[in-house]
Amino acid sequence: MRRTRDAERTRGEILAAATGEFAKVGIAGARVDRIAELAGCNKAMIYAYFGNKDGLFDAVFTAYVEAYLAEVGFSADDLPAYAGRVFDYFEASPDHLRLAVWYRLERPGSARLEVVLEVNAARLEELERARAAGTLVSDFSPVELLSLVQAIATSWSSMNPEFESGVPDQPARRRAVVAAVERLVGPATK
Amino acid sequence: MRRTRDAERTRGEILAAATGEFAKVGIAGARVDRIAELAGCNKAMIYAYFGNKDGLFDAVFTAYVEAYLAEVGFSADDLPAYAGRVFDYFEASPDHLRLAVWYRLERPGSARLEVVLEVNAARLEELERARAAGTLVSDFSPVELLSLVQAIATSWSSMNPEFESGVPDQPARRRAVVAAVERLVGPATK
Repeated sequence: MRRTRDAERTRGEILAAATGEFAKVGIAGARVDRIAELAGCNKAMIYAYFGNKDGLFDAVFTAYVEAYLAEVGFSADDLPAYAGRVFDYFEASPDHLRLAVWYRLERPGSARLEVVLEVNAARLEELERARAAGTLVSDFSPVELLSLVQAIATSWSSMNPEFESGVPDQPARRRAVVAAVERLVGPATK
Repeated sequence: MRRTRDAERTRGEILAAATGEFAKVGIAGARVDRIAELAGCNKAMIYAYFGNKDGLFDAVFTAYVEAYLAEVGFSADDLPAYAGRVFDYFEASPDHLRLAVWYRLERPGSARLEVVLEVNAARLEELERARAAGTLVSDFSPVELLSLVQAIATSWSSMNPEFESGVPDQPARRRAVVAAVERLVGPATK
């Protein structure tokens, strides 16, 4: 019993340390011995739990995706509110946004994550359903809406770093995100 | 004379090889000896021309920014057309988009590039001018427009890689980008 609790705690400490390291320097840049040092354990333990650095990244990434999905949810019939929640999540957890970007950059050809495939499919279905029910009105297709809403919700973080001084405060950034998504839903004005 | 031409050609070959390497694996992951091998020169020559790996990345990144700016330009009074050109540019040069993302991830606290600072400032001014002249009508502020338009123009590339099979063809992706930016300009519908 005690041993199981200790093992769980160690696993959690490794994941926390690895999240910070991967977010900071990516998969190629991450050093397992730095993660071990941060987690206060030895490298052998990390290999025992996660196999190798890629296995450790997969565990970190899956944990982030699950936390993200649980907190943000999805609302096909209120995409502006959904975009606001995506914005809030990544403002609170910038490390997670960096993980997502590293994942795109460093794993372009790798095996696909089951959880992400399922969520993509479920969201497209929900959007179709909302459209059929008339609770979503948009000229954009479901896949276009997913792409645009995601990009808009994270738009501020994709600006070049040279911009930082001219960027408005957090409430203003959030208002811009929600207002931009409001423009995508509802019939065309031209 | 001949020696200058050779030096120019060698420099160009190093930059081309380095662009591919940095785009693929980023700054931390890039190996100067791999770049030397690809460029058909020796490492010492790269250090002589560019100082170190960071200096080489700066040269690569500045060359990309200049090519991008020259080709895409800017149109404060026709942001949908501008977004279409940004889309076209990165569709044709996906390596350059990856460079831009690596730059954001790996250089968060570094010195700012003069050329980017100048372009940011010039664009904000152009947007203000277009607004004053009435050729740009939008509820969004200039900095909000820059952030949203950039994010929308590159939205497809920021989708999770699990999506690839459901993504529409290039003309449809482009139409979605241009139509989304059309929604940002023009008075609010609600």
